Amino acid sequence: MKLGRVVGNVVATRKDERLVGHKLLVIQVLRPEAGRQFTAADEKDGFVVAVDLVGAGLGETVLFCSGSSARASAAEGASPIDAAIVGIIDDIDVNLEAR
Amino acid sequence: MKLGRVVGNVVATRKDERLVGHKLLVIQVLRPEAGRQFTAADEKDGFVVAVDLVGAGLGETVLFCSGSSARASAAEGASPIDAAIVGIIDDIDVNLEAR
Amino acid sequence: MKLGRVVGNVVATRKDERLVGHKLLVIQVLRPEAGRQFTAADEKDGFVVAVDLVGAGLGETVLFCSGSSARASAAEGASPIDAAIVGIIDDIDVNLEAR
Amino acid sequence: MKLGRVVGNVVATRKDERLVGHKLLVIQVLRPEAGRQFTAADEKDGFVVAVDLVGAGLGETVLFCSGSSARASAAEGASPIDAAIVGIIDDIDVNLEAR
Amino acid sequence: MKLGRVVGNVVATRKDERLVGHKLLVIQVLRPEAGRQFTAADEKDGFVVAVDLVGAGLGETVLFCSGSSARASAAEGASPIDAAIVGIIDDIDVNLEAR
Repeated sequence: MKLGRVVGNVVATRKDERLVGHKLLVIQVLRPEAGRQFTAADEKDGFVVAVDLVGAGLGETVLFCSGSSARASAAEGASPIDAAIVGIIDDIDVNLEAR
Repeated sequence: MKLGRVVGNVVATRKDERLVGHKLLVIQVLRPEAGRQFTAADEKDGFVVAVDLVGAGLGETVLFCSGSSARASAAEGASPIDAAIVGIIDDIDVNLEAR
Repeated sequence: MKLGRVVGNVVATRKDERLVGHKLLVIQVLRPEAGRQFTAADEKDGFVVAVDLVGAGLGETVLFCSGSSARASAAEGASPIDAAIVGIIDDIDVNLEAR
Repeated sequence: MKLGRVVGNVVATRKDERLVGHKLLVIQVLRPEAGRQFTAADEKDGFVVAVDLVGAGLGETVLFCSGSSARASAAEGASPIDAAIVGIIDDIDVNLEAR
Repeated sequence: MKLGRVVGNVVATRKDERLVGHKLLVIQVLRPEAGRQFTAADEKDGFVVAVDLVGAGLGETVLFCSGSSARASAAEGASPIDAAIVGIIDDIDVNLEAR
């Protein structure tokens, strides 16, 4: 899984019917720094559109999964989903010097 | 899922029979900027050829999925498809300062 | 799917028996430019070894898929295949200014 | 699989119920150098949040897997897991000049 | 599939039981150059730990697969394996000017 921040949403009227009913949120991928800080990723891959399985809101730090884990978790059967928000981060503690 | 723009199409007469009947579109990956702007990705990975599940046209901003989500959504059984357009973006709102 | 050019082949006498009978081709990933031009990718990820499902030859521009789509398309059951050539490109038209 | 070091943990009270009971650890991806040395990855992709299947602790060097391998290993049925720690490294020996 | 060179091995006494009996080798990803030459990848992603399905030895040039192809090939049922060596390269011929 990866960490990210919810930075927006997308509206798509014409879409695969299996996406109907799913909230589509734009996530900016974050990388953890020491302690409780994050740096926003700046690369192209720094953004993902994910369905929301946990009721995340704009600005929240979230945990999301990708690939078949997102597909299988978000819906039964074939679904055109490859990213899903699966947790809202309350706290993180990172110690890059840990040995 | 990722955001992209339809920038072209490919013609392949000789192809796996399971691709017959699928429109193959070239997508340039986009990264969202603040508000409703996008920047075109400039990397090699900035282009994908996807099948079209929603009737997308040249120049439209689309949502596409990758991997097994695309494979399972585009066809039943084994299919040689790893990217599929699954939505046409009407609107996007991104606030990179959201907390 | 991605676009690539067949630039070579590999010979492996000792290999998983589920690869026997598959032609293994080296593909250089291409990124489309405006019109019908391509630029060869220069990164490490710019090369893939793929099985050939469509009879591709050296120097041809091809469409290939990756991951479980390649695995499922190339063989029934478990196969150690994660990339497969699934089309030979006759024509491509890209307009990066399309809106 | 990849090598990494456990550098922290995340707390998520609101999460997909299929994550309940799993310890969520932050892993910094490592790349091996000659002998028994490692360099910490510095890229955005240098961090992953993984569930722990082997009782890993802060500072330990671990082996983790990604994608459907992590999903299928960590739980039966659909699970929103795409990374899992599956080994604790006792020793590594790398010889970059090996021919 | 990708090309790589076996540059080492890892020892993990504590590991998921489904890894027991598998040899874990460190692979440095290679990119082919013209003719029969290779360049070692220098990126973080330039190293993978793979199980060995073909009896590869230190210094050998190998073919490896990733993701569900490796998982399904290496073992029946759920296995925490996302990379597997599936061939030993005897010869490679690359012509980057092929058209």
